[in-house]
Amino acid sequence: MQIILLSGGSGTRLWPLSNDARSKQFLRLLPVENSEERESMVQRVVRQIREAGLDAPMTVATSVTQQDSIISQLGQGVSIVTEPSRRDTFPAICLASEFLSKVKNCSPDEVVVVMPCDPFTELGYFKAIAEMEKAVTAGVADLVLMGIRPTYPSAKYGYVLPGDELSDDALTVCRFVEKPDVPTAEKLISEGAFWNGGVFAFRLGYLTKIAERYVSYPSFDEIRAHYADFPKISFDYEVAEKADSVAVIPFAGEWRDLGTWNTLTDELRHHTYGNVTVDGSGQNTHIINELDIPLMCIGTSNLVVAASPDGILVTEKGRSEDIKAYADKLKNRPMYEERRWGFYKVIDFVEFPDGFCALTKQLTLNPGASISYQEHQCRDEVWTFIDGSGEMVLDGMRLNVHRGDTFRIMKGQKHTLRAGEKPLTFIEVQTGNNLVESDIIRYPFEWEAGE
Amino acid sequence: MQIILLSGGSGTRLWPLSNDARSKQFLRLLPVENSEERESMVQRVVRQIREAGLDAPMTVATSVTQQDSIISQLGQGVSIVTEPSRRDTFPAICLASEFLSKVKNCSPDEVVVVMPCDPFTELGYFKAIAEMEKAVTAGVADLVLMGIRPTYPSAKYGYVLPGDELSDDALTVCRFVEKPDVPTAEKLISEGAFWNGGVFAFRLGYLTKIAERYVSYPSFDEIRAHYADFPKISFDYEVAEKADSVAVIPFAGEWRDLGTWNTLTDELRHHTYGNVTVDGSGQNTHIINELDIPLMCIGTSNLVVAASPDGILVTEKGRSEDIKAYADKLKNRPMYEERRWGFYKVIDFVEFPDGFCALTKQLTLNPGASISYQEHQCRDEVWTFIDGSGEMVLDGMRLNVHRGDTFRIMKGQKHTLRAGEKPLTFIEVQTGNNLVESDIIRYPFEWEAGE
Repeated sequence: MQIILLSGGSGTRLWPLSNDARSKQFLRLLPVENSEERESMVQRVVRQIREAGLDAPMTVATSVTQQDSIISQLGQGVSIVTEPSRRDTFPAICLASEFLSKVKNCSPDEVVVVMPCDPFTELGYFKAIAEMEKAVTAGVADLVLMGIRPTYPSAKYGYVLPGDELSDDALTVCRFVEKPDVPTAEKLISEGAFWNGGVFAFRLGYLTKIAERYVSYPSFDEIRAHYADFPKISFDYEVAEKADSVAVIPFAGEWRDLGTWNTLTDELRHHTYGNVTVDGSGQNTHIINELDIPLMCIGTSNLVVAASPDGILVTEKGRSEDIKAYADKLKNRPMYEERRWGFYKVIDFVEFPDGFCALTKQLTLNPGASISYQEHQCRDEVWTFIDGSGEMVLDGMRLNVHRGDTFRIMKGQKHTLRAGEKPLTFIEVQTGNNLVESDIIRYPFEWEAGE
Repeated sequence: MQIILLSGGSGTRLWPLSNDARSKQFLRLLPVENSEERESMVQRVVRQIREAGLDAPMTVATSVTQQDSIISQLGQGVSIVTEPSRRDTFPAICLASEFLSKVKNCSPDEVVVVMPCDPFTELGYFKAIAEMEKAVTAGVADLVLMGIRPTYPSAKYGYVLPGDELSDDALTVCRFVEKPDVPTAEKLISEGAFWNGGVFAFRLGYLTKIAERYVSYPSFDEIRAHYADFPKISFDYEVAEKADSVAVIPFAGEWRDLGTWNTLTDELRHHTYGNVTVDGSGQNTHIINELDIPLMCIGTSNLVVAASPDGILVTEKGRSEDIKAYADKLKNRPMYEERRWGFYKVIDFVEFPDGFCALTKQLTLNPGASISYQEHQCRDEVWTFIDGSGEMVLDGMRLNVHRGDTFRIMKGQKHTLRAGEKPLTFIEVQTGNNLVESDIIRYPFEWEAGE
């Protein structure tokens, strides 16, 4: 079996902790049982897959912007397929399937399970996935999907109306209803409908055959280069609803979408995280402070307060679904990003009336990690190292760097950096007229191994 | 007449906008009539003194930490007397009186009016001050104080119980009651008591004679050097309550202490200041954001939300008196300070486990302003200039500085900086083991005039 984890979403519903680079599935907020550690939604799901004994290789289908977060959170233990542009679930699943077929050389008979990377669920969910694999292997249907027992008549989900029993676990599918209104949802539930949780199982060849109707090339690289030729459509519409042979396997356990502050805070172990002061009079207030400065809440009730380098949110809990509309309008650059080499936060940004800008960051490279060999066309940078040590290359010249060292990197100067055995932290002051992350030209560079 | 303005207070009641360096009287929040400008409490009082036609020189009695804020907000038009250590109002008024006597060579017969620098009041208050001067001049009493007509039985103020009429405006004083409980305050008010607003008028010689019982030296500098010999006691206890000849002149107009967020926000013109997003559903929420990052409030009611480089506050309005106790415990260094040469904000601070620290600031020098010629013993500094131009001196070497220039200033290197005709802005990265503002040795330095 192969597992494809779908990791998408821009995640402004959990603003300011989530941003375009840090979708909700990457927020390290969930308590780990029997531990004071915290993990993200994607870390939790991957841990649960392993704990459930699903001994399948995992491939994450995601966007280029999320690639570094996935590497940083899941390490090298998963494969990653990045979409060249954001389309929909059908193209994303096609691309990942072609990757399994043409890069990992999986057999067309191998069973593939596709699932979202961020459900908040329990062990039974992964047992249902094992049943789905069995059903596909046994030929119960070409396509098997998971039906989640609804807990309330939600207008946010798709519904699957089951028919007759096909096997011990599987039922036929009579029809799909996408996001009905609440009265229709109530009626569907009374008729035995399930939520469509976006979990699908099929043989690899089943899907690559469908994919090749749209994009057919001998190599994965060519398919990826023609990714825009796939229609922008969901897997549900393009595959599930059109399938001749489709079955549903029910799951009746705990399953939730922690997509808003209101639902997420229900799962947190503590009421406060970070540098927070509260008096005893507040009620039902959750406070998450990722900034270094103190945050104080006095006498507050039913609030979520969240602060990060991207901004500060104070919302009445019942209204937390509304923040997306406002956060989408802010359209600021991400002020905190997890990268494959470590992380950075923007600590200051000034734009002067003549358009000249100064952007100051604090960056940390993980031990042994390095950034690419790069130059910038629009900005100068000044680096002041404040912790750790490492090596730097500046226009081909190799330098050892330590605490207190300062380097000025002018436009057009090639540079790279590698941390030593400890994290390497530095302050970067960027100056120029166009300070965007995309002002970067990368050059090949090989650090000698073990150097 | 001479006016002594008392400017004290650590101001954590309005945390995080106020801090040890920026007391509440310096917050530029109050609307100026017929203008979109805003002014601070001390600016408002000084403006009102002038508008009322009180043509008296002003001397501000304050602490060393507030000196730069006063120069920055009031300019050179006022004299400043700084206490070498914080004691109480009696010593502060003695020191300012000795300054008038020995430095400004005022006559012992000159009338002095002492008043707080931050009452929120109206023109009639200053007319009452003119009456107080007349009463002292006419010999109605040695000491004349202002009695403010109470609007509610507050337990926060001192009360003055008046007796017989001494003149058209003045009454004798029967007794003083300091901060009574509410029932006692109610009783006092029913008997005609006033609030003691801390406004006193006397002839200069009256007070210097009392001062010289404790500290008596021929020069002001010697008196200041022996400031600690004054008892730590209020002017009310040491002078007003012991005076043989004391009168009260009533004032019945608007007078308020904008000492808490609840009372201050009542006077603001707008509900939001700075980079703030609100939805339409919130009620009676005031939001002040001095940070560059966005602050969003959704569905909030009866809150004050305030964010500054010192911290973030979310408080229920009715509870805003309680923040002082919590803010006092934070004991952080000020993260924003107004200085005589401009202002700075701390944008990042990291302390590593071995005690090494890095502190990053954004600083702006006002046009033509300069810092002292100085060196540090415990820290290196890296300056990167991001706007304006100016001159720098580094160990005697003179340099012109512009946008994009970077300088590294090592421990023990003497340095100074002067802005050109525009504001000069730079990013400073301090590194070392003990990053405190007091790590500074100042040297004499003369910039050539007009250079």
